[in-house]
Amino acid sequence: MDRTKFVLDEDRIPRSYYNIAADLPVPPPPVLHPGTGQPVGPDDLAPLFPMALIGQEVSTDKEIEIPGPVREAYALYRPSPLYRARRLEAALDTPAHIYYKYEGVSPAGSHKPNTAIAQAFYNKDAGVKRLATETGAGQWGSALAFAGALFGLEVKVYMVRASYDQKPYRRILMETYGAEVVASPSLTTAYGRRVLDADPDSPGSLGMAISEAVEDAGGRDDTKYSLGSVLSHVLLHQTVIGQEAIEQMAMAGEEPDIVIGCTGGGSNFAGLAFPFVGRQLRGEGGYRVIAVEPEAAPSLTRGEYRYDFGDTGQMTPLVKMHTLGHDFIPEPIHAGGLRYHGMAPLVSLLKEQGLIEAIAVGQTAAFEAGVRFARAEGIVPAPETAHAIRICIDEAIRCREEGTPRVILFNLSGHGHFDLSAYERYLDGRLEDYEYPADRVATALEAVPAM
Amino acid sequence: MDRTKFVLDEDRIPRSYYNIAADLPVPPPPVLHPGTGQPVGPDDLAPLFPMALIGQEVSTDKEIEIPGPVREAYALYRPSPLYRARRLEAALDTPAHIYYKYEGVSPAGSHKPNTAIAQAFYNKDAGVKRLATETGAGQWGSALAFAGALFGLEVKVYMVRASYDQKPYRRILMETYGAEVVASPSLTTAYGRRVLDADPDSPGSLGMAISEAVEDAGGRDDTKYSLGSVLSHVLLHQTVIGQEAIEQMAMAGEEPDIVIGCTGGGSNFAGLAFPFVGRQLRGEGGYRVIAVEPEAAPSLTRGEYRYDFGDTGQMTPLVKMHTLGHDFIPEPIHAGGLRYHGMAPLVSLLKEQGLIEAIAVGQTAAFEAGVRFARAEGIVPAPETAHAIRICIDEAIRCREEGTPRVILFNLSGHGHFDLSAYERYLDGRLEDYEYPADRVATALEAVPAM
Repeated sequence: MDRTKFVLDEDRIPRSYYNIAADLPVPPPPVLHPGTGQPVGPDDLAPLFPMALIGQEVSTDKEIEIPGPVREAYALYRPSPLYRARRLEAALDTPAHIYYKYEGVSPAGSHKPNTAIAQAFYNKDAGVKRLATETGAGQWGSALAFAGALFGLEVKVYMVRASYDQKPYRRILMETYGAEVVASPSLTTAYGRRVLDADPDSPGSLGMAISEAVEDAGGRDDTKYSLGSVLSHVLLHQTVIGQEAIEQMAMAGEEPDIVIGCTGGGSNFAGLAFPFVGRQLRGEGGYRVIAVEPEAAPSLTRGEYRYDFGDTGQMTPLVKMHTLGHDFIPEPIHAGGLRYHGMAPLVSLLKEQGLIEAIAVGQTAAFEAGVRFARAEGIVPAPETAHAIRICIDEAIRCREEGTPRVILFNLSGHGHFDLSAYERYLDGRLEDYEYPADRVATALEAVPAM
Repeated sequence: MDRTKFVLDEDRIPRSYYNIAADLPVPPPPVLHPGTGQPVGPDDLAPLFPMALIGQEVSTDKEIEIPGPVREAYALYRPSPLYRARRLEAALDTPAHIYYKYEGVSPAGSHKPNTAIAQAFYNKDAGVKRLATETGAGQWGSALAFAGALFGLEVKVYMVRASYDQKPYRRILMETYGAEVVASPSLTTAYGRRVLDADPDSPGSLGMAISEAVEDAGGRDDTKYSLGSVLSHVLLHQTVIGQEAIEQMAMAGEEPDIVIGCTGGGSNFAGLAFPFVGRQLRGEGGYRVIAVEPEAAPSLTRGEYRYDFGDTGQMTPLVKMHTLGHDFIPEPIHAGGLRYHGMAPLVSLLKEQGLIEAIAVGQTAAFEAGVRFARAEGIVPAPETAHAIRICIDEAIRCREEGTPRVILFNLSGHGHFDLSAYERYLDGRLEDYEYPADRVATALEAVPAM
């Protein structure tokens, strides 16, 4: 029987996170205080994060040890399996070998618990009682609610209003784990009240929800803030994905030629890609690494690389990244996890350094790939992940056309069990595609502070 | 790090199914023709099933080889992991060791693909083009839709009207796999039209949907019928669960004292339990084996052991089983997979032989256990599975009270991602419990033919 999947025993859960900052040819640009324009220090961030995470955010150590209780919690679902997609290969009649790392095996259904568990542990360890966060599609909120239940932390989730209304199951999942969920913009923060005063029917956005969660955490001594993507310590925690994948590809006796992940804030892409890019930086391998983003929020392919706020309310520090402008609100595509105006600073830096490529994909093309994948491999992917699968399939077809066998690896970052209404729209032919909103982006970029 | 889960490589997928009929002290009673009262022969069943499955239904071989293509498809999710529920043990402060076999890792989210894949293979192998089936909660329909996609078979699913309306995500999942789904009772069968004539607002039932699917398959040369539980060949296919669990318990260095599964038709229970009962019959182990059923459909604890129809429309042969009467329609509990008037003949026979016990559980008690499990272990269980977890927790608490460490193993037969509206009702305190409907059962039993 030809092998379909490559599983690792739980003692193969990585013992350290891989910090790509240690291997980069240039250091990451500093995070700036929006008032002074000067680099922020640990004390500036202390109201929002425990010191251990602030230290990881700026660390230049190549390896950062994973604490025992975090590895024990990871063992609830890690190591995740690596699959050879033999049925998809056959359906595409391609000479390519397609592999995928399946992160949907986590109880929350995506890669997000990799950092949620770590963040919950470090906060608990620092005496924090409560975490405030935002969620768009609900993947991140579910992950933090799950991690909070494991470590005995209260969790308050500001859920983007549009998702809150469209995806009740995601909300109920968070509540089943014991979290408190409120639609954002909400009346519980000054920022939320300001937004609702101006527009009582605001559908919300990830940028707005971040502002609310930051305000919540900043205003309470027992509470810290928790973010599910973008920041360097978040990406750091996700590198367990790529480290396991390297070991599993070795079990398969192959090296990937192409490594693919979808990018909203950048965390699942970074989690798979950074350990491979690190090998390349150390001269141990050569890979084509592709970040796939939605046409509706194409920060890497169309945004500017400059300092901007992470949130709409201008409460976060300034980070240097590819941005469409913090005021830019992406169209309501169903891949809610990709609806973000910016990109993780480390992913942005790799793009600037020419270490990775970026491609934008429309949502109809993504869903077409998602359905094709489901019928071949069984797993119904999250709409976010379907963007990565689109490019995987395109590359596999190119292999067929060119008669070139290549090894393709992508991150199947989550399942689509809570996104089936979007699949229904696709199957019924009712799914919208959106033109790139050049004018709105230009206007949003004008509002970005000059730094 | 204490081990949390026990995983097997895919070459450890069992090579044969275990047929408990070979080890039983008495042979299973024959299936009877409702017209003649005589045992049915293969030709009677040929319009509904391919010969390979008819052969398995009556086989007395102890081991039946699993075909290569079936094992290859199993490799998409098997072997499934076995977990030690250390966090639940800690939360219960019990000296018990709790293990669970997690079947929710399949793409359809439950154990059902174990037989769906096998049935799709044998039908495809026999030249069948199309399968007709019924589904209650949607777990079985999803599994057969998935298996149909893998083997290139058309699948038509008659979905109980109440579920069709309440669980659109399950329907969309089936459609994403390419299946055709219709609410039952439907206008596409004579039986469905008869029911709708009498009651245009009929919410349907599993028994009615079976009648429609049987009529569909009986009327078309290109179509066979496929059933997700009850029949002996279905239970046979599920024995991969228990065979893997035996190997994984050995990895853990323990033997279960108590083996638990929930029972609707009986297939997930049988899948885990039969290989253990087989060891016991061969003098290789001693286990307390508990079937957990819902108070709303308590066939094993309150039904009569006698010949009855498997469906409401009296189209199936007669099987000897614990039944509440084929006319009995259970209250609309959220564990739709347990809403069946009968019980698998083999499970019923084991109960009669004193080889297993049965306990009935109310749905509020089941959901309480499900939420407690989710907050400890992360996985939100299907409402059906929550019934098994209730008894697992009760037994673990008894271990604490008696100061007796016991090893408990249960089957986590599926996740609850498509059942979250039921969890919401529980969390909001709106979940109903139902008294045992003694009068309705008595009436239904009067309608059972004397055989």
